[in-house]
Amino acid sequence: MTNELHGRKVAILATDGVERVELEEPLGALLGAGGQAELLSLHTGEINARQMDIDPAGTFTVDKKVADARVGDYDALLLPGGTMNPDQLRTDPDAVAFVREFVETGKPVATICHGPWTLAEAGVLHGRRLTSWPSIRTDLRNAGAEVVDEEVVIDRQLISSRGPQDLPAFCKAIVERFANAPQPA
Amino acid sequence: MTNELHGRKVAILATDGVERVELEEPLGALLGAGGQAELLSLHTGEINARQMDIDPAGTFTVDKKVADARVGDYDALLLPGGTMNPDQLRTDPDAVAFVREFVETGKPVATICHGPWTLAEAGVLHGRRLTSWPSIRTDLRNAGAEVVDEEVVIDRQLISSRGPQDLPAFCKAIVERFANAPQPA
Repeated sequence: MTNELHGRKVAILATDGVERVELEEPLGALLGAGGQAELLSLHTGEINARQMDIDPAGTFTVDKKVADARVGDYDALLLPGGTMNPDQLRTDPDAVAFVREFVETGKPVATICHGPWTLAEAGVLHGRRLTSWPSIRTDLRNAGAEVVDEEVVIDRQLISSRGPQDLPAFCKAIVERFANAPQPA
Repeated sequence: MTNELHGRKVAILATDGVERVELEEPLGALLGAGGQAELLSLHTGEINARQMDIDPAGTFTVDKKVADARVGDYDALLLPGGTMNPDQLRTDPDAVAFVREFVETGKPVATICHGPWTLAEAGVLHGRRLTSWPSIRTDLRNAGAEVVDEEVVIDRQLISSRGPQDLPAFCKAIVERFANAPQPA
């Protein structure tokens, strides 16, 4: 347990179908560094997690509907993967507007696996450099991004990784970048 | 039982995660009209189907690996949906090459729900008009397509529908279009 994220509050945006380890491990790293986190979703109650998309893998309790959340209340945003998770988030205008507004503030945004689909939907990838799960790279390129195959990619505010195999490096990177980001006045 | 598809052979390309009704109902319509069909996939044996992406929904027996299939052996191509199905197909170079080559022949290609993702991957959607499940429409537009919200869309060789709710109209349309397509010499 360290304390470099003391006073920092991270929004995690996810819904049913989220890949369990891609929410749980980053969450553990953020809390272990002294940060706070809130899970935002499309509905209240619990969301159902999956393992490798196929197997049910328990639930996470939602803190707030994304429609009721304010971008200004958070210092960073985390978008986990799981194929079905962003596939639903991107159809929700409140979720997409929250992500677009968050990116526009310049605050750190971290995403892994299929998570960047929601960034493509928000139209904020033009000229950005990132990585992702292989299946969505054509969609990200068609949305204007430069896509590479690396463990962790950092392009200004954007931190990205390819999938569960990258979680150790991803978690280390997000703690460092979230800690070093300028805090809003 | 009618016979308008007598002598016509349809390739169905799908893998694990296929939405059961989007394979089963069109298959029934094609066989009921006197046609033949073969299930092509990424592996031999059986593929696992799903219901609304979440629930296991039995299996389908694969007839042939897509890597071993020849475009010239089929009169039409069917690409069912299910989120995880095209998400895997599009990462397989043999599957993507088969789809691209099929489109280039001008023979009919029918797709529903998330199925068009594989067409986006194959780079064959520029200037095409189609419909799909709502979540992937931004990806299709970014791939150069005109995307509309209609029950069935027919643009030259391409027949598309939005999801399970459109299956009755989709099945009727594919039987008609597959029957009327010019047969290869």
